[in-house]
Amino acid sequence: MPPIKNLTIDAERLWDDLMQTARIGGTAKGGICRLTLTDVDREVRDWFKARAQALGCAVTVDDMGNMFARRRGQRDDVPPIAMGSHLDTQPSGGKFDGALGVLAALEALQTLHRAGYETFAPIEVINWTNEEGSRFTPGMIASGVFAGAFTRDWAIARQDRKGESFGEALDKIGYRGGEPCGAHKLSAFFELHIEQGPYLEAGGKEIGVVTGVQAMRWYEMTVTGQDSHAGTTPMPRRHDALLGAARIVEAVNDCARQFPEAVGTVGLMEVRPGSPNVIPGEAYFTLDLRDPDATVIDRMETAIAAAAERIAGELGLSVALKNVSTQPAVEFDKGCIASVRAAVKASGYSSRDIISRAGHDAAYVARVAPTTMIFVPCRDGISHNEAEFSRKEQCSAGAQVLLQVVLDYDRQLTERHRRG
Amino acid sequence: MPPIKNLTIDAERLWDDLMQTARIGGTAKGGICRLTLTDVDREVRDWFKARAQALGCAVTVDDMGNMFARRRGQRDDVPPIAMGSHLDTQPSGGKFDGALGVLAALEALQTLHRAGYETFAPIEVINWTNEEGSRFTPGMIASGVFAGAFTRDWAIARQDRKGESFGEALDKIGYRGGEPCGAHKLSAFFELHIEQGPYLEAGGKEIGVVTGVQAMRWYEMTVTGQDSHAGTTPMPRRHDALLGAARIVEAVNDCARQFPEAVGTVGLMEVRPGSPNVIPGEAYFTLDLRDPDATVIDRMETAIAAAAERIAGELGLSVALKNVSTQPAVEFDKGCIASVRAAVKASGYSSRDIISRAGHDAAYVARVAPTTMIFVPCRDGISHNEAEFSRKEQCSAGAQVLLQVVLDYDRQLTERHRRG
Repeated sequence: MPPIKNLTIDAERLWDDLMQTARIGGTAKGGICRLTLTDVDREVRDWFKARAQALGCAVTVDDMGNMFARRRGQRDDVPPIAMGSHLDTQPSGGKFDGALGVLAALEALQTLHRAGYETFAPIEVINWTNEEGSRFTPGMIASGVFAGAFTRDWAIARQDRKGESFGEALDKIGYRGGEPCGAHKLSAFFELHIEQGPYLEAGGKEIGVVTGVQAMRWYEMTVTGQDSHAGTTPMPRRHDALLGAARIVEAVNDCARQFPEAVGTVGLMEVRPGSPNVIPGEAYFTLDLRDPDATVIDRMETAIAAAAERIAGELGLSVALKNVSTQPAVEFDKGCIASVRAAVKASGYSSRDIISRAGHDAAYVARVAPTTMIFVPCRDGISHNEAEFSRKEQCSAGAQVLLQVVLDYDRQLTERHRRG
Repeated sequence: MPPIKNLTIDAERLWDDLMQTARIGGTAKGGICRLTLTDVDREVRDWFKARAQALGCAVTVDDMGNMFARRRGQRDDVPPIAMGSHLDTQPSGGKFDGALGVLAALEALQTLHRAGYETFAPIEVINWTNEEGSRFTPGMIASGVFAGAFTRDWAIARQDRKGESFGEALDKIGYRGGEPCGAHKLSAFFELHIEQGPYLEAGGKEIGVVTGVQAMRWYEMTVTGQDSHAGTTPMPRRHDALLGAARIVEAVNDCARQFPEAVGTVGLMEVRPGSPNVIPGEAYFTLDLRDPDATVIDRMETAIAAAAERIAGELGLSVALKNVSTQPAVEFDKGCIASVRAAVKASGYSSRDIISRAGHDAAYVARVAPTTMIFVPCRDGISHNEAEFSRKEQCSAGAQVLLQVVLDYDRQLTERHRRG
């Protein structure tokens, strides 16, 4: 079958939607602060719902607040082909992370609507709740419940720093729906996202064909020494926990650089007692290790633990390393990836295969439905930052591929159903 | 003149006073939490006042809350010979830091009282307000006002973390006196203190003849990089402020170890934004440099600033170093030190000359009166810690020397006045 070429998304309309919704929670520096389940999240959800309904969609909400805007197909008994991402942001997030995936999906749906094109399967646009995890940890909690990674009751009871629960926050903004989270079956799920890294831009490629998500492991480390007087304790008699932590930070950096694809990050550190004239007796910090190959993370963990023990021994400290989270590597669905390749080819864009270095809702959804992602470049690889930026033509390329992918996948479904 | 040998302090009575007052603000682990100008500070001040009055002393209070318990001499027009220290503690302080200097002074005074010994000059015991600086910064603020290092109005307006001012706290516990701080003239001041370091214990010496206080300088340093996504930012593209800070911590340690007497400490560090999956864009930390010779601190400052610039250059960071406090080295009064040497000799204790590595009220008082200090050993050099400990005989040796010093200094004063 030749690819469908006559449907083209409207780049201006998509850009207008991105800029219009960016005002909801917009910051002075051009970013967005739209924490999940806040009043501004309700506002953008209301906008999304109204827009989808204006296109004739039925909008349903599950009991984790995930929103499904559904355009009917020829066969409404077939599970929908879904697209989407998330509308919440980091506290100082950009205009594109999450929003592009939802608004491009809406634009693709609108293109079908205006053309009067009837798909075989229903088409849905999904807005997943709390992808970022900035207000309620962990991130991707609602797609995690959808995929069975967490229980609904555990997730609903998560509290923000003010002690408000996820469930209370859902009720407060009126987005606790009736459908049990996870009951919603999908024929496939496609998530368009900015790369959040430098590779597409550096290689001059317009589209990233995402083949999987790298593995990730989180740890907490505590280095214990002895707090003592900064004036009276001679250098050779010190058991300085911060000096030990500093050497471990260096070891993490050294270790990650030994593997071409690996990253290792100490992002949070607390030093106790934390007084200018007291030698630190304790340093607590987090450790984030990632690589497409989980066995590389195993090797990094072993090397870092050994380095930490050696450093602690040299300084008369003790050290405790605790694994607190493990995300296996994800391989996306081969059929979905083939559809992306076909769509890229049909659209004429340049592309490369790429691994997602960040976590995404698609990584959980992949456990319960054929899933993949499409990446577009972002400037300097910067994300989770108000300076995050992708150009209009980069966004529209992603949206066009997303539309083509859905059409391709829908034709495959049609073929499969015809053959029985 | 032969030394006076017939007056001996009561080791048991001193120990009992140390243990009794340690209950005021006493902690479960055997330390003391007696923050300045709190209810427990009032309680120990009331105890001190009552005890001094029972020995026939007049107790006056200045407008910084410093307390002066005065025993009359033959010549009440001669400024008093004073002894003392402070009764406030760190949040998890020990039983000896400060308390020993006040209670041993009280014991010396009691010994004179019981013996009916009449000194030439009046003898005073001083309790300085807020030596520790744990509730109101900076430490030694009231002896600092006494010596003209700070203005009274500035000090009175200092606020604790709850926004209560020093002046309000003085009024609340009823210890804002009428005498202007600094108007109180002294013939001399002697402060007995635990060493808070390891040298006396290591050398098997009973008394430290303190010849001065080392110089100290405080700095704040901020390392700025770029916060970015821990998953998507490849190692070579990072500008990790914490990695830079870690290398500077190592450089501070290396630098201090190049000078035999120097110490260098990073005691407080804050990493921003402080999220496990965000590469730190900023690290803020304090730097405390000390050496008996201020020119060594100059050299350390130059070396550390150069190392920080080099490290920042390597990692694509920027770094700002700001000097926030400078304490010059203090040389104590030669006449006072001679009295301590004479007292040590008369008492038969082993001793060594020593520099104080910590700041003390005596360092400020030395600006306005002949001053020195006497040190006694403490176990493992540990201080500012609930485990801080000196043995009964170590405490009483210090008290005995303190008494002898006052008698020696008083006789010198007598001689000087006779000669006119």
